[in-house]
Amino acid sequence: MSRAFLHDLLTSIGQKSRELVHGGPVALTDGVEIADLAETILSQRGEASGIALAEMILARFRSMDPTQKLEFFKVLTEHFGAEQGRLQAAATDYLAAPSDQSAIVLHDAAEPRRQELIRRLNLPDGGTGALVAMRSDLLDLMSDHPELAAVDHDFDHLLSSWFNRGFLVLKRIEWDTPASVLEKIIEYEAVHAIQSWDDLRRRIEPLDRRCYAFFHPALRDEPLIFVEVALEREIPGAIAPLLADDRVPTQSDQMTTAVFYSISNCQRGLRGVSFGNFLIKQVVQELARDLPRLKNYVTLSPVVGLLHWVRQLGRDGPLQDNERYQRISKLLEHTGWHQNESIAAELQEMLLPTAAVYFLNAKRGDGMPVDAVARFHLGNGARLERINWLGDLSDVGLNQAGGLMVNYLYKLTDIEKNHEAFVNNRRIAVSNEIRKMAKKWQQEFGFDK
Amino acid sequence: MSRAFLHDLLTSIGQKSRELVHGGPVALTDGVEIADLAETILSQRGEASGIALAEMILARFRSMDPTQKLEFFKVLTEHFGAEQGRLQAAATDYLAAPSDQSAIVLHDAAEPRRQELIRRLNLPDGGTGALVAMRSDLLDLMSDHPELAAVDHDFDHLLSSWFNRGFLVLKRIEWDTPASVLEKIIEYEAVHAIQSWDDLRRRIEPLDRRCYAFFHPALRDEPLIFVEVALEREIPGAIAPLLADDRVPTQSDQMTTAVFYSISNCQRGLRGVSFGNFLIKQVVQELARDLPRLKNYVTLSPVVGLLHWVRQLGRDGPLQDNERYQRISKLLEHTGWHQNESIAAELQEMLLPTAAVYFLNAKRGDGMPVDAVARFHLGNGARLERINWLGDLSDVGLNQAGGLMVNYLYKLTDIEKNHEAFVNNRRIAVSNEIRKMAKKWQQEFGFDK
Amino acid sequence: MSRAFLHDLLTSIGQKSRELVHGGPVALTDGVEIADLAETILSQRGEASGIALAEMILARFRSMDPTQKLEFFKVLTEHFGAEQGRLQAAATDYLAAPSDQSAIVLHDAAEPRRQELIRRLNLPDGGTGALVAMRSDLLDLMSDHPELAAVDHDFDHLLSSWFNRGFLVLKRIEWDTPASVLEKIIEYEAVHAIQSWDDLRRRIEPLDRRCYAFFHPALRDEPLIFVEVALEREIPGAIAPLLADDRVPTQSDQMTTAVFYSISNCQRGLRGVSFGNFLIKQVVQELARDLPRLKNYVTLSPVVGLLHWVRQLGRDGPLQDNERYQRISKLLEHTGWHQNESIAAELQEMLLPTAAVYFLNAKRGDGMPVDAVARFHLGNGARLERINWLGDLSDVGLNQAGGLMVNYLYKLTDIEKNHEAFVNNRRIAVSNEIRKMAKKWQQEFGFDK
Amino acid sequence: MSRAFLHDLLTSIGQKSRELVHGGPVALTDGVEIADLAETILSQRGEASGIALAEMILARFRSMDPTQKLEFFKVLTEHFGAEQGRLQAAATDYLAAPSDQSAIVLHDAAEPRRQELIRRLNLPDGGTGALVAMRSDLLDLMSDHPELAAVDHDFDHLLSSWFNRGFLVLKRIEWDTPASVLEKIIEYEAVHAIQSWDDLRRRIEPLDRRCYAFFHPALRDEPLIFVEVALEREIPGAIAPLLADDRVPTQSDQMTTAVFYSISNCQRGLRGVSFGNFLIKQVVQELARDLPRLKNYVTLSPVVGLLHWVRQLGRDGPLQDNERYQRISKLLEHTGWHQNESIAAELQEMLLPTAAVYFLNAKRGDGMPVDAVARFHLGNGARLERINWLGDLSDVGLNQAGGLMVNYLYKLTDIEKNHEAFVNNRRIAVSNEIRKMAKKWQQEFGFDK
Repeated sequence: MSRAFLHDLLTSIGQKSRELVHGGPVALTDGVEIADLAETILSQRGEASGIALAEMILARFRSMDPTQKLEFFKVLTEHFGAEQGRLQAAATDYLAAPSDQSAIVLHDAAEPRRQELIRRLNLPDGGTGALVAMRSDLLDLMSDHPELAAVDHDFDHLLSSWFNRGFLVLKRIEWDTPASVLEKIIEYEAVHAIQSWDDLRRRIEPLDRRCYAFFHPALRDEPLIFVEVALEREIPGAIAPLLADDRVPTQSDQMTTAVFYSISNCQRGLRGVSFGNFLIKQVVQELARDLPRLKNYVTLSPVVGLLHWVRQLGRDGPLQDNERYQRISKLLEHTGWHQNESIAAELQEMLLPTAAVYFLNAKRGDGMPVDAVARFHLGNGARLERINWLGDLSDVGLNQAGGLMVNYLYKLTDIEKNHEAFVNNRRIAVSNEIRKMAKKWQQEFGFDK
Repeated sequence: MSRAFLHDLLTSIGQKSRELVHGGPVALTDGVEIADLAETILSQRGEASGIALAEMILARFRSMDPTQKLEFFKVLTEHFGAEQGRLQAAATDYLAAPSDQSAIVLHDAAEPRRQELIRRLNLPDGGTGALVAMRSDLLDLMSDHPELAAVDHDFDHLLSSWFNRGFLVLKRIEWDTPASVLEKIIEYEAVHAIQSWDDLRRRIEPLDRRCYAFFHPALRDEPLIFVEVALEREIPGAIAPLLADDRVPTQSDQMTTAVFYSISNCQRGLRGVSFGNFLIKQVVQELARDLPRLKNYVTLSPVVGLLHWVRQLGRDGPLQDNERYQRISKLLEHTGWHQNESIAAELQEMLLPTAAVYFLNAKRGDGMPVDAVARFHLGNGARLERINWLGDLSDVGLNQAGGLMVNYLYKLTDIEKNHEAFVNNRRIAVSNEIRKMAKKWQQEFGFDK
Repeated sequence: MSRAFLHDLLTSIGQKSRELVHGGPVALTDGVEIADLAETILSQRGEASGIALAEMILARFRSMDPTQKLEFFKVLTEHFGAEQGRLQAAATDYLAAPSDQSAIVLHDAAEPRRQELIRRLNLPDGGTGALVAMRSDLLDLMSDHPELAAVDHDFDHLLSSWFNRGFLVLKRIEWDTPASVLEKIIEYEAVHAIQSWDDLRRRIEPLDRRCYAFFHPALRDEPLIFVEVALEREIPGAIAPLLADDRVPTQSDQMTTAVFYSISNCQRGLRGVSFGNFLIKQVVQELARDLPRLKNYVTLSPVVGLLHWVRQLGRDGPLQDNERYQRISKLLEHTGWHQNESIAAELQEMLLPTAAVYFLNAKRGDGMPVDAVARFHLGNGARLERINWLGDLSDVGLNQAGGLMVNYLYKLTDIEKNHEAFVNNRRIAVSNEIRKMAKKWQQEFGFDK
Repeated sequence: MSRAFLHDLLTSIGQKSRELVHGGPVALTDGVEIADLAETILSQRGEASGIALAEMILARFRSMDPTQKLEFFKVLTEHFGAEQGRLQAAATDYLAAPSDQSAIVLHDAAEPRRQELIRRLNLPDGGTGALVAMRSDLLDLMSDHPELAAVDHDFDHLLSSWFNRGFLVLKRIEWDTPASVLEKIIEYEAVHAIQSWDDLRRRIEPLDRRCYAFFHPALRDEPLIFVEVALEREIPGAIAPLLADDRVPTQSDQMTTAVFYSISNCQRGLRGVSFGNFLIKQVVQELARDLPRLKNYVTLSPVVGLLHWVRQLGRDGPLQDNERYQRISKLLEHTGWHQNESIAAELQEMLLPTAAVYFLNAKRGDGMPVDAVARFHLGNGARLERINWLGDLSDVGLNQAGGLMVNYLYKLTDIEKNHEAFVNNRRIAVSNEIRKMAKKWQQEFGFDK
């Protein structure tokens, strides 16, 4: 919006608003003032000047410090919910005569005013991005201020609707992608950090490497989520060879296996809006079309909670006095144990079945696996296929999982069945090999009933 | 979605669905079956196969005849509202202890299941376009079936949110725009019909002509609304010279006035989602930036309800016996009166003040002007500037308004003020000239109190 | 180039040039003055102001009438050839001591100054297009002024080099191609005229229709040559069904034959620069890649010189007294003969072998076929495959060829062999069927030796 | 070209060629074989299979080692010149009857067959790039093999014509330019090396930094030449502050001076084809249009030959015994002299006038300045404006020029005049300040006559 136009509009909004914009010190330090603008944008006046007012509010918010932002969110919580009088009337009417029609009136009355406010803040160019950033700030503040959950509920509702899969665009990330996008791939990679532009290039330029991301048209250069794929001759068991800077690329005619070795969400402000499921499935389709020779679609994934779980069992769980368990724990304490052949061999024999037990039996209160990565892929309908010894020798890999990595297998014909069994009955799709491994040891860990 | 992938998914959805897809005759003629798919897509199963299921539902809908579509919408009305049991509980709880928290629970419970259904139907590529088309069908059926209003309420709610101004893209329509878009401009022009490709070209190619449209990224080649602009030396009073095929283009250095002479909504399925206000204002900004010399931004608009109103007043209104009024009516009955100098002169003297009275005094029950075009521009904050004699000599122009056209003036510094006065107090921004004209005659028409 | 910059440059070029630009009447009516600018641009001064000077020359040329243009071209002919003194010295030196080195010096000395002039005129944006247009004017004038051939030789040399196949871009013409390009397709179609935008649409939008054009990056929206393709179930024998507005499109799985039914050069100024050969072969490759099911690549072509040749033979050739020939001629005189069953049947029996004889025996002085279309396709390596009765019932088709059309077959494995035999030995690749037909009648026409 | 198509073509080219392609060891090690293909592509056969043959030749060339390439170029030198018999006849005819017509015949006869060969090698996609690379190889070999100059002459002739300014596209290089282009900017920067992606980003992303490059459509992602521009408050005297990673960007309203601080040619294979002149002038126009506030267009340039020249004068020139000169030389021998205040002060007083003398008096045999950068900018019509003390403290800067840098000023109204005086009369445009400085010392250096 041109400066002149904004100025013209504002000269007609009245003294108070004008002060806010031209910015006396009171206005700039007081989080409540922005709330007045929020009231204005929801009023009649807001219709004519909606874009200008939204730009003012977003600009004001951006310049606030966390205390001011908290104050603003608190105002939203307290003063921008549903109108209680109207809602009580609608609820009373509905209960007196429940019908689809009275339910609709009730639904409208129950909508928090925050939702219309958020919709209006989205009007200007760049509004969507500003709202995603605002939501990110909100999440930061929520950990100490759970009372803001009501505001977050509205953000979540609208962002989920606006970032519906139908509005997303899948793009391949390549070496001739704009640098402004590539730098974000470097920044957002959360699983196996990208060390440099050369490292990035090795992951996107060779013919046996692919990277795909979802974008939203209103956040032009901002990837929402991306997945890195290696096209390999067989299902890999370790991450290092995939990332090695001197590896030999796979020949086109030998690519049989697409390996999803890293998937990263990019926008903290979109937490809870799920893209990963759709991304993996669409990438599977893209690859199947481009490379009809491909036979397997697997992940190479970390086991994020294994050792944490093991330690807990030993501390206050049933394994306090278990000999084998104590042996595992002791061996893991050796620094560099994986370079010591005999220790490694002994651990291998014990850690693999431990992991199998972990996947099949370590559950949260709701019956879901404690392992977040497992929840994601099993929830997508994948199958836990293989546990790999010495798959990830990075510090994180050793500390989380004793170096173990796993493959989840996406088999198109089983996805729906697996998903449903998992969601409805908490049944985990797993290979026979892992099931057998688990069986041997379940007794040890007290999961044998 | 690849055929193979769809097939794989469907083989796992179970016998019934498979039959629907492979299409036994029952499935294809029975509008209720699609409702089963709708139930499925809202279930757990729907998460894994959501895109495939949505494609099936949309394809099924497309192939239905109106009777089947009506049946489908009825099922949506009756079975996909809010869950009454859950809603009654939430309403009771809320009334027992009204709070923001209980209001949120109530709001969630009150959401019709249709809304989640519509969101899921949006998942596949092309989903948004299919939903806009579905809404268009719904509007067709609603005139005879007002009970479908509940379904329409949900479409309206979601489409308004999805087609928020912040997601729209303004594009200039030019002669090197793809023909597939241009043909839609020809098709959708609703004010001054475009006769041919040559006619279109005359409206978009010369340097003193512009056309702008809003697009939504999910409806790639489909304009949502567009406006045609002429860059003129002065405020024009008649449409024919603007559209003449032998007119002399305005020199760049003589363009002082941007004339919005036609604005057309394109998507019936988006009825009620308002773009026009934003479009005009953004185009004003674009033009102001490109052509700093421009001084006036006006419309050249039809007066859609004038003669209808005049006739009504004479039939059963206060003017049954008014002499002057009867004279007007009589003169207008002459075919080709505008080519008869003396009749035209007499009518001119009387019709102009009549129109002024019409704009200022002909109101609906809610106090808004009966003239729809006036409601739109005055609601945007424009001012009624001038009434033009013999502005539109087309059949429609003569029948609607005795050939009158008007200019609405968009003056940036007054827009907000005008809008607010109009919306809050029903006060109409109008030039002194028109106000004076009206004054003289208000008594005649019985608006003199 | 900004006006100010041009002005600044010109103020420093000296009085004379300045007058030319600011345009006294002498300058504007005198074709010789532009030649002074041409001298200037070839001088030292030209290096610094080359673009500005070239723009001046091109603008001046554009505004000239044909007489002035002719004068300008004459000056180019007479004063911008090679420098004779330098050339004579170089030729003498070369003959005294012929070597590669002295040949190079000679070559440089022999280059007409026009070539450097044309290269400099190409410097500004739009220069290439202006030169192509200038060459078109030159060709117009050359018919009456053969002495301009020297200038044309230089245009031909440089344009052939600049429009080398390696610089061309193949683009598919579709319904979402910019209208500014499509209008040129309508304008340039030279074989089967495009009647309207709807007619165009029928040729490019259906799934069984394709159109491809070559573009040059310096002539952005200007197609150089384009070919229209129909994807059919079998080799067609008539044009009307291909262009019918109510035809039923071919199903994808039934497309076996790509028919090149129209190929048009677009830029008269590029006469002699051959693109057609490359276009057809590249389109064959595109189609083969997209539609692996395709088996045949054929044309449906006019027989442009048949009746002209027939008439000549009868007038002053060996057939003056030939009975059968006289019968042919007489029957063709009936207006609407093709709608008269018995005449048509009698003609069919005679005209088909006549055409076969025509293709195989009617030759120019250089041994090439007199039929220009045949020269083009046979020169490309195609084979004359089939002669079709009542293939083109348009006036042109009846007048040129008694309604006959032919198919040339492009068979990839034979192209090179056919081409070479044709070019080196004037041997025509032809189907057995046509060869047999010809044999029967060659005696009649006196080609039996 | 599809593999199948290529194969089909080659099966018809005959036994020998087929062997070349399928590649027995003889073919691959023998540079002469490729010459046979070159003969073939110039023959009739070449017309039908030109693209395929060109691809073969280019592929063969690419896989050759330097010895083979040398052999190939030698064959081109010896066997692909003009046809001597035809040329001798044409020369004889011309001398017997000199005319424009006989001159044209002579010119055609004098064209080396290499030129047609190069044009044919350009036919396939990627041909232009391959030829530029081939020319680069040729230049490498030429230093030891001056006899290849004839081949280079042909490359130079055609590449100059093909890379005519009218075919070039100016693009701004920004942070959202594809990384594949940006990496080439990093690679090709020849003046002030780009250290990293962060360094690059600092040069293209801030609002007060610009970078522009020329591209050719046939070399899509390959910049030909680029210039880096800083928008500053005043004419800068040192390079380090412009490149500092912690510098404060210039505010928009304070930018008065565009500084061209680095210009780099990218394609060794285009040596001798001059772009720099056009690039600078077009960038000046772009900037003038975007930023009307700009007042000065200057360079910040190295003084590449100063100390080399100074040393020469002292060694065997007139300054062997000059005291002041000896003092300069001695002081420069101190490592880190520029950090020693007193030495620096003493040197400053002497080195600045020395440089002035250098620019005005140090000439090559042809009267041009020995300083290559000066030749370029003065030849473009710029003026030598200012000599800056301690402008470049890098090793190179200290070694070449005792840390001096200079500004050349591009003043649009003087460009043409300066250029002409420079080219015709070797007169150097220079500020009064520098002229005065030089005067004082010319005697010292023996340039006082």
